[in-house]
Order: sequence, then structure tokens, then C-alpha cells
Amino acid sequence: MKVALVGVGMIGGSLLGAWRQAGLVTTATGYDIEAKAVAAARRLGLVDRSAASVADAVGDADLVVVATPVGSMRQVFADLAPALPAHAVLTDVGSTKSGVIADARAVLGAAFPRFVPAHPIAGKELPGVEHSDARLFAGRRVVLTPVAETSADAVARVERLFGQCGARVERMDAAEHDRIFAAVSHLPHLLSFALVAAIGSEAEGERKLVYGGAGFRDFTRIAASSPVMWRDISLANRAALGDELRGYRALLDRLQKAVDEGDAATLQQTFELAARLRRQWASPADAQ
Amino acid sequence: MKVALVGVGMIGGSLLGAWRQAGLVTTATGYDIEAKAVAAARRLGLVDRSAASVADAVGDADLVVVATPVGSMRQVFADLAPALPAHAVLTDVGSTKSGVIADARAVLGAAFPRFVPAHPIAGKELPGVEHSDARLFAGRRVVLTPVAETSADAVARVERLFGQCGARVERMDAAEHDRIFAAVSHLPHLLSFALVAAIGSEAEGERKLVYGGAGFRDFTRIAASSPVMWRDISLANRAALGDELRGYRALLDRLQKAVDEGDAATLQQTFELAARLRRQWASPADAQ
Repeated sequence: MKVALVGVGMIGGSLLGAWRQAGLVTTATGYDIEAKAVAAARRLGLVDRSAASVADAVGDADLVVVATPVGSMRQVFADLAPALPAHAVLTDVGSTKSGVIADARAVLGAAFPRFVPAHPIAGKELPGVEHSDARLFAGRRVVLTPVAETSADAVARVERLFGQCGARVERMDAAEHDRIFAAVSHLPHLLSFALVAAIGSEAEGERKLVYGGAGFRDFTRIAASSPVMWRDISLANRAALGDELRGYRALLDRLQKAVDEGDAATLQQTFELAARLRRQWASPADAQ
Repeated sequence: MKVALVGVGMIGGSLLGAWRQAGLVTTATGYDIEAKAVAAARRLGLVDRSAASVADAVGDADLVVVATPVGSMRQVFADLAPALPAHAVLTDVGSTKSGVIADARAVLGAAFPRFVPAHPIAGKELPGVEHSDARLFAGRRVVLTPVAETSADAVARVERLFGQCGARVERMDAAEHDRIFAAVSHLPHLLSFALVAAIGSEAEGERKLVYGGAGFRDFTRIAASSPVMWRDISLANRAALGDELRGYRALLDRLQKAVDEGDAATLQQTFELAARLRRQWASPADAQ
């Protein structure tokens, strides 16, 4: 299989690593606006050839993976559409799906049915292809959000390919996907960024940060994520994220009142609901 | 050294484990309102004797450690004051200090100068003495917040004892301590509890939680903490926590507007400030 990777970062590099370990890759071509990212991927043996443009990258591909920030995908789709071989399948790894599908529908033309929208639920806050990990997807979920026009063959191929990375693949409606991930991913990222920014903006903020312990470390780990990637996700999923943030702020209003008034019962009830759900949720990875 | 531990949980058990490893403990007596906690500590070899009451626990102690939720400490201090030997030193491990000091001053009487307020910056979200770890304090900070009346000898003894657990001990004004930890500990706990509670209260909340990934796991790890302990901390430090929460909510108001209006610049600036500070802050433990 000839693979073209557009956007050479941690996720794309991890996919190539996994597919290479599975013996699926004959050649891999990479394109990134940062030439040094492709050079790093070549040194790591993940990419064979550095392409001069998006169109150059995809010209002989069997599979194209778009792994740029979601705000760049519309332009990438527009650039690759004229060069995409007729048999090639296209997928992405974006964390939002409705907006990406709308972008693809607008510019891919006849190739749109061969675009299989995908979201691998795996990541780490360290960006860059040098942090790739061929085992990143083992046991993780990958959510595909095909639409009515999407080719069943293309979906089956992409489903198989993510399965060969060790992932559990499932299908979901794109709007439902976006509501779910607004709650469990996009909102926590925004809140974590906001905490560090709020403390950092205080008069003695930097002194306060010195005293952050294990809880602070865990809570703010995702605040080291890529600002551009999360700006794009926040905007691409702004309707669902806006709703989740509104609901969360309403709860914080109640908790502010409880703290100010010394309302022990409200605090305890909220904390107990959370602790019960979080302990139920806890995965074996928590025991690490 | 004869140690009395009032409140037999993860932190107190870890302290006893560390002092035992350092050969400092001749006998340790435990008291907890949950008899099974003391029984577990005896099975683990951390505690030698189960006391019938707080007063019974401290009657022949050289060192008394109060490791209950901070909301219970005033009553504990009142119960132990009449029984405390004249030479004994008293310390606590509460996450808030001004309120604990006020409680101690109100009820300890002549023993108040021998109370050395302490906050070990170490913890995990798994409560209970069975999760004790004698290495918990190695390399961690312990903040002592003595007041004008506190005996210099008592401070020196407690400082040395925490140092013998491997901790880095420092002194700080109690009000400053409470402002710092409102920001880097108490607020993140409240926010993490609130996220899980907010999602869990939604119509499809439990289905959404299924899709939480690594970021959700990190962000919400502290939402599995003890609801009673964190209710008490939130109330004991309500002035400083209320102020921090107000500042954070003001930032969320601005981010809500930015999400709703598609204001990329505000999102990116906020996320960039946070990512820069968080990456600077990152400790070696992050690489785990």
C-alpha cells in the first residue's frame, strides 16, 4: 500500500509506524508545511519521500491520511482533490467531524464518497513526529463518521486499516460524535488551558505555579497541548462546545454560591456524584 | 519516639511508614472513627495499638499527627488537649492552614505553641491506609505555617521529622499558603469534580463518559478524591477559593464569548499563554 501523509505529526507518524509494523506499507510520502517535520519522519524511517506539495504527495497514493489541524483541512482537501488517484481512499484524524465533513463535501467534488471521516481517540500532549508511537492505538477507540454518500467499500477499508493498528473501530453519527467529544475532550482542554492562563495572569501567578503538586500536574497536562490545534477544534466544534461550556458555567455559578455561602450540602452532593461516576469510569490505566 | 495518629488514612499511614523505615518509631497508636481503618493499619504493621478515643490515643505520645479531614480538626484538638503530655509536639497534614490554626488557637489552650501547622504537598486520589506509601513524600514539598506563638523547638522538631521522610520542608505565612493552594490545588479539584458532575447530569451523560480518552482521564483523576475531604477544604478555604473561582469564571465568560463568536485570536492567545507556562512548569515526573 502506498500511503500519503499530509500533516506529519505525532498521530500521523504513529499510524505509519503501526502500519509499517503490520507490513502494510510499500512506500510512504509525507508533506508538511514544516519541512523539518518530514525530514524527522524520514530519519525515523516512517516516511520514504518528502513531497513538494499536497498534490505531489497524493499523486500515486492508495491511501491518503490528512493529519493537519482541522482548521487547515478544507485547504488540504481542495489542494489534493485534482491529484487524487481514482482508486485512492482518503481519511483524516480530526477531533471534530461535522465541520470536516462539510469542508470535504464543499471541495472534494467527485472524490467525496471516498473520504472516510475518522477520529482516533488516542493522543498525548507532546506534539511532533518524534513522539510517534506505533503502539499508540492499541486497544484505543477509533470513531468513523461516514455519511450517506460515503462508499461502503471505502469505509470497510479504513475500518480494517485502523483495526490493523490494534484499535477498536466503531461508527457514529457525526453530530453525535461532536456532542460527545465537546463534553469529554474539547471542554476539558479549554478548562485546563484556562486554569493555567488564569493563574499565570495573576499578580503572583508564577510563584503560585511553583507549588502545583500531582493533582495540578494531572489536571493541566493537556494544557501543554498545541494551541493552534485546540483553537481549530474549539472553533470547528463551537456549537456543541459552546453548549457544553454554558452548562458547565451554570454549575460553576451554583458552586460559587455554595463556596461563598458555606453551603456544605451542595458541595458534598456535587463532589459525591462526580467521585462515584469517576470511580465507575476508571480504567485499568488509572492504576499506573 | 511514640507516635499517635488521629485519622488513619493514606497520608497518615505513609508518614508512619516513612518514619518506621527511618527507625524513628518505637510505638504507634492509631485512632479513627472507622475502626476498620485502624485494624487495616495494624495488619500493615504501621500501627501497634488501636486507641479507644482521641484522648486515649495521645496520652503517652511524643508526637501527635492529626490527619483527619480539616472540618473535623477543631473537635479533635478539643478532645486531645486535656490528654496531651506536656512535652508532646502536635502537627497536622491539612490542605488549608488559616482555618486549622484558628481552630487550634481556639481550643488547644496552653498546648497551642506546640502545634506546628503543616501541609505535605503529596497525595493521590486513592484514599485509605491500604494505599499508604512510605516513599510518598520523597522529594515532595512540605509547607509549615507556624505563627508568632509557635515554639521554635516544636517547629524544628517537625521540620526534621518531615525531612526524615525525604521531603523538602519550607515555611510560609498561612494566609499566603491558602491563597497559593486555592489556585493550584483547591480550584482544580473543584473544577474536576464539576466537569464529571456536569456531564453526569446531562441526558446522555453516561454514554458520553464512555468516550473519555487519556486527556479526560488525566483531567478527572482528582474527581475520584474523597468528597468529604474536599468539601471540608472548600469550606475551610472559602475566601481564597471563592476569589480564585471568581477570577476563573471571568476568564470562562470571555472564552464563552470567543467560542460563540468564533474569535480565534482570543482562544489562541489564551491557549498559548497556558501552553507556554505549563511547558515551563513541567516536572520530570511528566515524562512518566
